[in-house]
Amino acid sequence: MGVALADDQGRLPLLTPMSEVAGRMSIQEGAKYLERPQMGRGILLGGVPGVAPASITVLGGGVVGANAAKIAAGFNADVAILDINMDRLRYLDDVMPPNVTCLFSDRHTVRAQLERADLVVGAVLIPGAKAPRLVEEEDLKRMKPGSVIIDVAIDQGGCIATSRPTSHSQPTYIVHDVVHYCVTNMPGAVGRTSTYALCNVTLPYVIQIAQQGIEAVAKKSRPISRAINLHAGEVTNKAVAETFGMPCSERFAGN
Amino acid sequence: MGVALADDQGRLPLLTPMSEVAGRMSIQEGAKYLERPQMGRGILLGGVPGVAPASITVLGGGVVGANAAKIAAGFNADVAILDINMDRLRYLDDVMPPNVTCLFSDRHTVRAQLERADLVVGAVLIPGAKAPRLVEEEDLKRMKPGSVIIDVAIDQGGCIATSRPTSHSQPTYIVHDVVHYCVTNMPGAVGRTSTYALCNVTLPYVIQIAQQGIEAVAKKSRPISRAINLHAGEVTNKAVAETFGMPCSERFAGN
Amino acid sequence: MGVALADDQGRLPLLTPMSEVAGRMSIQEGAKYLERPQMGRGILLGGVPGVAPASITVLGGGVVGANAAKIAAGFNADVAILDINMDRLRYLDDVMPPNVTCLFSDRHTVRAQLERADLVVGAVLIPGAKAPRLVEEEDLKRMKPGSVIIDVAIDQGGCIATSRPTSHSQPTYIVHDVVHYCVTNMPGAVGRTSTYALCNVTLPYVIQIAQQGIEAVAKKSRPISRAINLHAGEVTNKAVAETFGMPCSERFAGN
Amino acid sequence: MGVALADDQGRLPLLTPMSEVAGRMSIQEGAKYLERPQMGRGILLGGVPGVAPASITVLGGGVVGANAAKIAAGFNADVAILDINMDRLRYLDDVMPPNVTCLFSDRHTVRAQLERADLVVGAVLIPGAKAPRLVEEEDLKRMKPGSVIIDVAIDQGGCIATSRPTSHSQPTYIVHDVVHYCVTNMPGAVGRTSTYALCNVTLPYVIQIAQQGIEAVAKKSRPISRAINLHAGEVTNKAVAETFGMPCSERFAGN
Amino acid sequence: MGVALADDQGRLPLLTPMSEVAGRMSIQEGAKYLERPQMGRGILLGGVPGVAPASITVLGGGVVGANAAKIAAGFNADVAILDINMDRLRYLDDVMPPNVTCLFSDRHTVRAQLERADLVVGAVLIPGAKAPRLVEEEDLKRMKPGSVIIDVAIDQGGCIATSRPTSHSQPTYIVHDVVHYCVTNMPGAVGRTSTYALCNVTLPYVIQIAQQGIEAVAKKSRPISRAINLHAGEVTNKAVAETFGMPCSERFAGN
Amino acid sequence: MGVALADDQGRLPLLTPMSEVAGRMSIQEGAKYLERPQMGRGILLGGVPGVAPASITVLGGGVVGANAAKIAAGFNADVAILDINMDRLRYLDDVMPPNVTCLFSDRHTVRAQLERADLVVGAVLIPGAKAPRLVEEEDLKRMKPGSVIIDVAIDQGGCIATSRPTSHSQPTYIVHDVVHYCVTNMPGAVGRTSTYALCNVTLPYVIQIAQQGIEAVAKKSRPISRAINLHAGEVTNKAVAETFGMPCSERFAGN
Repeated sequence: MGVALADDQGRLPLLTPMSEVAGRMSIQEGAKYLERPQMGRGILLGGVPGVAPASITVLGGGVVGANAAKIAAGFNADVAILDINMDRLRYLDDVMPPNVTCLFSDRHTVRAQLERADLVVGAVLIPGAKAPRLVEEEDLKRMKPGSVIIDVAIDQGGCIATSRPTSHSQPTYIVHDVVHYCVTNMPGAVGRTSTYALCNVTLPYVIQIAQQGIEAVAKKSRPISRAINLHAGEVTNKAVAETFGMPCSERFAGN
Repeated sequence: MGVALADDQGRLPLLTPMSEVAGRMSIQEGAKYLERPQMGRGILLGGVPGVAPASITVLGGGVVGANAAKIAAGFNADVAILDINMDRLRYLDDVMPPNVTCLFSDRHTVRAQLERADLVVGAVLIPGAKAPRLVEEEDLKRMKPGSVIIDVAIDQGGCIATSRPTSHSQPTYIVHDVVHYCVTNMPGAVGRTSTYALCNVTLPYVIQIAQQGIEAVAKKSRPISRAINLHAGEVTNKAVAETFGMPCSERFAGN
Repeated sequence: MGVALADDQGRLPLLTPMSEVAGRMSIQEGAKYLERPQMGRGILLGGVPGVAPASITVLGGGVVGANAAKIAAGFNADVAILDINMDRLRYLDDVMPPNVTCLFSDRHTVRAQLERADLVVGAVLIPGAKAPRLVEEEDLKRMKPGSVIIDVAIDQGGCIATSRPTSHSQPTYIVHDVVHYCVTNMPGAVGRTSTYALCNVTLPYVIQIAQQGIEAVAKKSRPISRAINLHAGEVTNKAVAETFGMPCSERFAGN
Repeated sequence: MGVALADDQGRLPLLTPMSEVAGRMSIQEGAKYLERPQMGRGILLGGVPGVAPASITVLGGGVVGANAAKIAAGFNADVAILDINMDRLRYLDDVMPPNVTCLFSDRHTVRAQLERADLVVGAVLIPGAKAPRLVEEEDLKRMKPGSVIIDVAIDQGGCIATSRPTSHSQPTYIVHDVVHYCVTNMPGAVGRTSTYALCNVTLPYVIQIAQQGIEAVAKKSRPISRAINLHAGEVTNKAVAETFGMPCSERFAGN
Repeated sequence: MGVALADDQGRLPLLTPMSEVAGRMSIQEGAKYLERPQMGRGILLGGVPGVAPASITVLGGGVVGANAAKIAAGFNADVAILDINMDRLRYLDDVMPPNVTCLFSDRHTVRAQLERADLVVGAVLIPGAKAPRLVEEEDLKRMKPGSVIIDVAIDQGGCIATSRPTSHSQPTYIVHDVVHYCVTNMPGAVGRTSTYALCNVTLPYVIQIAQQGIEAVAKKSRPISRAINLHAGEVTNKAVAETFGMPCSERFAGN
Repeated sequence: MGVALADDQGRLPLLTPMSEVAGRMSIQEGAKYLERPQMGRGILLGGVPGVAPASITVLGGGVVGANAAKIAAGFNADVAILDINMDRLRYLDDVMPPNVTCLFSDRHTVRAQLERADLVVGAVLIPGAKAPRLVEEEDLKRMKPGSVIIDVAIDQGGCIATSRPTSHSQPTYIVHDVVHYCVTNMPGAVGRTSTYALCNVTLPYVIQIAQQGIEAVAKKSRPISRAINLHAGEVTNKAVAETFGMPCSERFAGN
């Protein structure tokens, strides 16, 4: 257990790039596992002239979902993105291509989407918190045989009832004829991209610390002071201390 | 009865602009007659953030259909365009926005589209020939109550079984809960645009004839010679002559 | 008289969807009433190849105006959107298609636009406040005969001097050869879309109140407490009480 | 050995849909096999904000190449498409998104592209003829370790020197650190899409034959008469007869 | 005097790339010479948020004009492209961005455009033939002071009455307050791009000739045989021979 | 020395339009000075079909950089925009065309970009502060001979080591074979656009002052009170007073 660096709006800036990578990657996984030899229903995401493209439903319009929808749109697929935040949906409506439909997410709409979707991306997650569950096991029976679910929220417990963690070496399993891809740490498969993305967000903190020392930086930056778990042999974060029943140093408490 | 000017590929260049006008206009008619006070189902073509847009089916991918699909796409609606000419569908796939799906038209696909469409544009017409009939009366029962059909092919008899000509003053009627708009001479309502469009295609012929005289031009241009119905008191077109049981002058026969 | 739910930035979230619907709908009304049989100048919004499209001026770049401009752009028309908020114009410049020009609104520019416009959308309104008047009666004389004004601000008094409320059954009238469409409650004509849009924004409040009771919710949520006009037989909103000369309960005053 | 249906321009219309499917599919295969667990270099096609996307080189601008480039562009990757037909490149320049660069293909350009590409799609094929070889074994040494080649031309022998046919169950192998994907019959993996696509092009011929009988149709249609290999126990195609050293019936010879 | 290589449709394929370069380059010249220190009217092509962009008129929708319009559109300017070929205008309408309006070119429209244009590109030329004159000297008086004309047709005599050839070292002059840029051989200024573009189209011919010898190639290729002006000390092209009053060899006459 | 009007977020709203103008203008300057007669490398920004476009690197993703990238993208060039603000890069990724790549700016990436760029735009400036220096003199040696640098930051000292101010009459000079364009007050060349842009942002302040008097306005508006340097013969701004060693009036000190 550890505590991640959070900015003053409660965002976890060091995890954002991993959400971006996983969101974009989810569509290429979906494309692949819809192939028949991978047990999918044998449909090509973008269709061809004369044949309709696949229907893709993205549950969640945050970082993961928006990145998934962008790539899905690039396949010329028929894409729906669902969220409960109307301001977010309005922004997505402004910047997404016209084959992305922005829908308010309620139970009825989620179920209607599951019936028509060839590919569902579970993208409802708040990094660091448990993902809400949007799809129940019985909902799967409405889905087409051979359709595919990519549950990107799996690192936070998944937003699909039937999700359980898998790995890059054995990425999928099948429940009620629906292929489930629930690989934890998806970005690990594209390490070259992920590493650069991660460095871009950590570098500014590293440079600050290297130049000024951790104590000086912690004094000036609340995100950093709050993210220090251990320092000089002492536990310095209250939540971590409580979890492990250890004493907590007051060293960075003022922040 | 008369014979129109046809070029050497059998196209009727003087009618093309009217097809363009009617095709583009069909979508604004559809938008209007989907409103509830016009007896439509009360749906906004483009939807709004959070609410899905309308589904629009365009039957035919020729001049009328392509122009209808362009405007429909601009509403951010969910558009399908159907044709049996694969080369045409491939070209449309190249130039249409991603919310236009190009489908091969067969009986099964037409019927599946009718079930989901809020607006259907009948655009299967060959200017000068009788339009093929693609939608039977019983097919209408699959359509949603309050959905709208715009039959642009009405000037050639219509491509919907239940179409019958209407006018700008009384443009619609209802059959099986489906609003029918079958106005003949649609372009007449936007005369300013239509007149310019028509002049653009006729002007080159008019200038030629004014400068050189009809006889000289007819000798050089087969499209013109074939389009002369009457000249100096004589019927000069064989088809016209036969229709009316009159003698036909050989004056322009060489062409 | 009543007081609407306002969030802490002073926005009226329950009215936003109606502005979106009316904004998008304004263009299809404009397209229709520009037709000659509707007394418009007989011009097709999008033109056709060879003939220029219509010029559309949208007065106001807020929710109504931005939604109007999006649909207008989809017609391939020549669109100008005017506002005095430069930050807003910069954002619109980022997300609008290239046939939308973002102009700073001053008296000179408004008048220059009126001269060239075929369609003018009055979209300067702040829900809940009286709309500012941007177009005077004498300005209409600069407009082309048969041009059309859609005054979406009519529910707040209109932003055109010659606007007066009309209804869906008799939507237009003519002043100085300019067609005026000033239907109050435009979204009522597309009730299916409007109802969903409205539910999307009210549902979260309804669920909260149903689960916790109005009193508990009012304590936690200032937007809700401020929006309660009457409760248990008492007037609870100060402004309402003053308007009607009634006593005001202090029940929700703390918020 | 058999002879396929060719139209009068020498195109093979029944194979076109398979080229479209394989072209679009090539990019999702490339995306997948660039992942590190699949032995690729661990790069995400579209990159993320802050990190550059992959470079994709498509060798050949025909049906396969154009369809590959469209999907590649949708990933926001940096795409180059090479061909020697300038008229084709000009058309592609008109209809492709701006992240697709159209390059004239010569030996120098091909080699320069190999150095920068993360993904190479071999799309130089004329259905029915042996594919020209554009990449030699020594060229592979210029490529980045872990880059990927998808040789769609493998059904016609491949356009990469080191290509050899593979299958969906064992799709890739590695030569000089470059992953090779050379699955024959790629469209078989998306059978649902491929079958519809194939039916769309064969149906018109099937209907003709069912309605009129093969002999009548063969008389009217040279593409069909030329495509008949066997009829009523006789070999009817000269090339087939010669290949197998059998006598050739003159039944359809007149065409 | 010489005769250029023409294909069987009468196109001059070796000159096309130069038209493409000059067309695209014309807009950057226009942008530059509209600056005040270059004597232009001091207007920025694309405008900025709040200020309208420039109006650009492109006379001619062939290779030069289409390439000019593409770049002009990229500046977010207000672009009109004029031609008399309706089929060409329809294609341009399909592939150009929405800020390009495709207009039928007649005397009235040209003059109306001159009044509103900040930049005019003269692009009406048929390589190898004298350009038609579209703008008379008196028309210039309708133009705004400081507006700019780029006459790309200058190598064929120019399509503007007041055009006279200039050079890269002294590119502009002023007539009736309108800046004229009439540099002959515009592509010379971007030699790196032009040389590659030229090689791409000549290389296939060069390789053929190098491999098979000129005589063998001339026999097989009519475009090449017709383009040979001199061979082995003899004039081999009839037109050239007549021009210079020399005897003409029959060596390649059969083609 | 003077103090400019700053809003409460520290932005300088009166300078923003000048940054927009300079940013957009930088690309047309780059296009021009890449021409060979201007000593550039003779490359056309957008290339032509068959020949690759130029590579453009924009250092800085603020107002100047985003406006430069937009116009650069419109040339169909290969554009990279660099910044260290990840939130800004994410927004740019949402709204820029796909030929703009958003890169995190670090020393390594800047140097890699310099090697491949034909045109570099220095756009790292905070109006009113000294620009950071991103390119050292030795870095220029990595650049291609004839490449061009436009240093828009020159008014704040430039972000390129070798930049020194130039003027519209003598705009460029060459260091290490790289053309430098470092004109101060770039917007002066497009005065018509710049003046309107400037009026749009100053007018609201001018109207306020004209209607209410400077003293009344200064009391209500901190941006205005802080921007008053001199009033009624007294220095009223502390920083100005200190710079010139003069006494400072307390008249507007309360703000």
